[in-house]
Amino acid sequence: MRITVVGAGSWGTALGKVWAEKGHEVRLLARRPALAEAINSRKLNPDYLPEIELPENLKAFIDPGQALTKTEVVVWAVPCQHLREVAQGVRDILPRKIPLISAIKGLEIATFKTPVEILGEIFPENPRGVLSGPSFALEVARGLPTAVVLAFEEESLARELQEALSTSFFRLYRSQDVRGVEICGAVKNVMAIAAGISDGLELGLNARAALITRGLAEMMRLGLTRGAEPFTFSGLAGLGDLVLTCTGRLSRNYTVGYRLGRGEELEEILGSLHQVAEGVYTVKALYRFAQGAGLELPITEGVYQVLYEKEDPRNVLRRLLSRPLKAEFEPPLRP
Amino acid sequence: MRITVVGAGSWGTALGKVWAEKGHEVRLLARRPALAEAINSRKLNPDYLPEIELPENLKAFIDPGQALTKTEVVVWAVPCQHLREVAQGVRDILPRKIPLISAIKGLEIATFKTPVEILGEIFPENPRGVLSGPSFALEVARGLPTAVVLAFEEESLARELQEALSTSFFRLYRSQDVRGVEICGAVKNVMAIAAGISDGLELGLNARAALITRGLAEMMRLGLTRGAEPFTFSGLAGLGDLVLTCTGRLSRNYTVGYRLGRGEELEEILGSLHQVAEGVYTVKALYRFAQGAGLELPITEGVYQVLYEKEDPRNVLRRLLSRPLKAEFEPPLRP
Repeated sequence: MRITVVGAGSWGTALGKVWAEKGHEVRLLARRPALAEAINSRKLNPDYLPEIELPENLKAFIDPGQALTKTEVVVWAVPCQHLREVAQGVRDILPRKIPLISAIKGLEIATFKTPVEILGEIFPENPRGVLSGPSFALEVARGLPTAVVLAFEEESLARELQEALSTSFFRLYRSQDVRGVEICGAVKNVMAIAAGISDGLELGLNARAALITRGLAEMMRLGLTRGAEPFTFSGLAGLGDLVLTCTGRLSRNYTVGYRLGRGEELEEILGSLHQVAEGVYTVKALYRFAQGAGLELPITEGVYQVLYEKEDPRNVLRRLLSRPLKAEFEPPLRP
Repeated sequence: MRITVVGAGSWGTALGKVWAEKGHEVRLLARRPALAEAINSRKLNPDYLPEIELPENLKAFIDPGQALTKTEVVVWAVPCQHLREVAQGVRDILPRKIPLISAIKGLEIATFKTPVEILGEIFPENPRGVLSGPSFALEVARGLPTAVVLAFEEESLARELQEALSTSFFRLYRSQDVRGVEICGAVKNVMAIAAGISDGLELGLNARAALITRGLAEMMRLGLTRGAEPFTFSGLAGLGDLVLTCTGRLSRNYTVGYRLGRGEELEEILGSLHQVAEGVYTVKALYRFAQGAGLELPITEGVYQVLYEKEDPRNVLRRLLSRPLKAEFEPPLRP
């Protein structure tokens, strides 16, 4: 199969490596010529996965035409806030009807749209799905066992791509809940910031576990208003990725929260980060959506207040962890 | 309120400390005279929480009569396999009608009974509930924020005890799903062994997150056959405690798994453990139950095989992480 991966960051490169090793013809569309050059000549990605050797049949391009001609599936792995621009740039050359897979986790701030929704506006004739789940790029690139979800509305397409894109260690499970999988991937980054703040404040593992639990409930509350299926939240894209991002030190979003908890300023943290921490943007979109919809999302609000209203993280966490005593599940979650 | 905590291990002592500091009259029933003596004279528990100063009004006893007379609530914090014997020993002196709270996580190997079921056989006239959730004893003893679930079938009693036993940092949420909360507390210890094995084998954080996700599904599959409510599994006693135990190095069960993954023998590990790792016993009860009920519990089976059939942990984990490619949720979980 001819696969184009748009975006040569750590995630795009790791995915490209897995599929090239499976024998597919994988083209990686990079933005910067120097990076494409390094991938092609040195067989490594010095900026994002410097210690990983890349296979011969993984080729990088900076010309969208060369990367996309006659391709059979396009996988998107660019920062969420850039997706619209990148997609619009290739609108006229991307083959019609071929499936598009978002490997992006986030929401467009201005519109509260998910990556698949954005792709739908630009490529209405292409079937669109999402790949998500607990998957640190570095571990995937190293060949460590990883299980993710591939969601397409059309089951036969999901089945076909599942076969084509799975390997013995990178396993895809099928879902048809595209919307739910996308919401999970976006919201978990906000929860990871909250978990990082808690750890930065040294509140302990009990507090972090309670936050993760409330985080899943919050994710579910939001998702159900947007038509997601409840089971998705207990799955790999929901719980699995939430746990990974909130407890693993490899997570950028967790790290942002941790450093906020240690007393650093947001500008300072973002200035020193090598890659985008999507949660920093997602929380803005979520916060505005919650306000508009009259939805109670206390962790999201707390993270927003720490990031953008200069609230003391300690006060926000204290508030989150001392909510009124009540039954664990109240309506509407409790049927 | 007069509270008796049966068991002066780390968990019983931490609970006693919290409630004594709230102003309750707390009596701790210990087994060994030397330990009771240390708690009373030195105001610390040298064996289980050596670095924690205990309040003046927390008194330890070794005579059940002294510990139980005129008490208003009894909280059980002994190893699960000892509960029946300890409870039978005080059957005639324990006041009738007062509420009993199990703070025990496990299953009796011989009977597959939960602690509340065991208490029900011995004290049929006392209302019985369970306290469970993500709560490392050391963090509770240190006053770090912790949220747990208190479940009683009778809601008014749950409400009354919730008020009496909550503090600003040790918060109890109500539930009526006693059965579900108990199943979560038992099964999560088995999952923690699996997560520890994965980490001991250095399979990475992606693999561990996938295992935790499948662990919650397995817990739910088992619980639903035993009449638990589905929402309990997404709550503090289910997901919350599962995450804590599978990711925190303070967990004894995780540690057992980790050392198995590093190649140590079970006897060697258990010989060097200071306290009981309940999962080592629970997995036996669960395995037998699953065999009898024809229930598919692959993680439980895998842990059983590593512990009791000397299977190579690497083979078992490989099998668990390479199950057939399919939809993420199949019946009966998927409605």
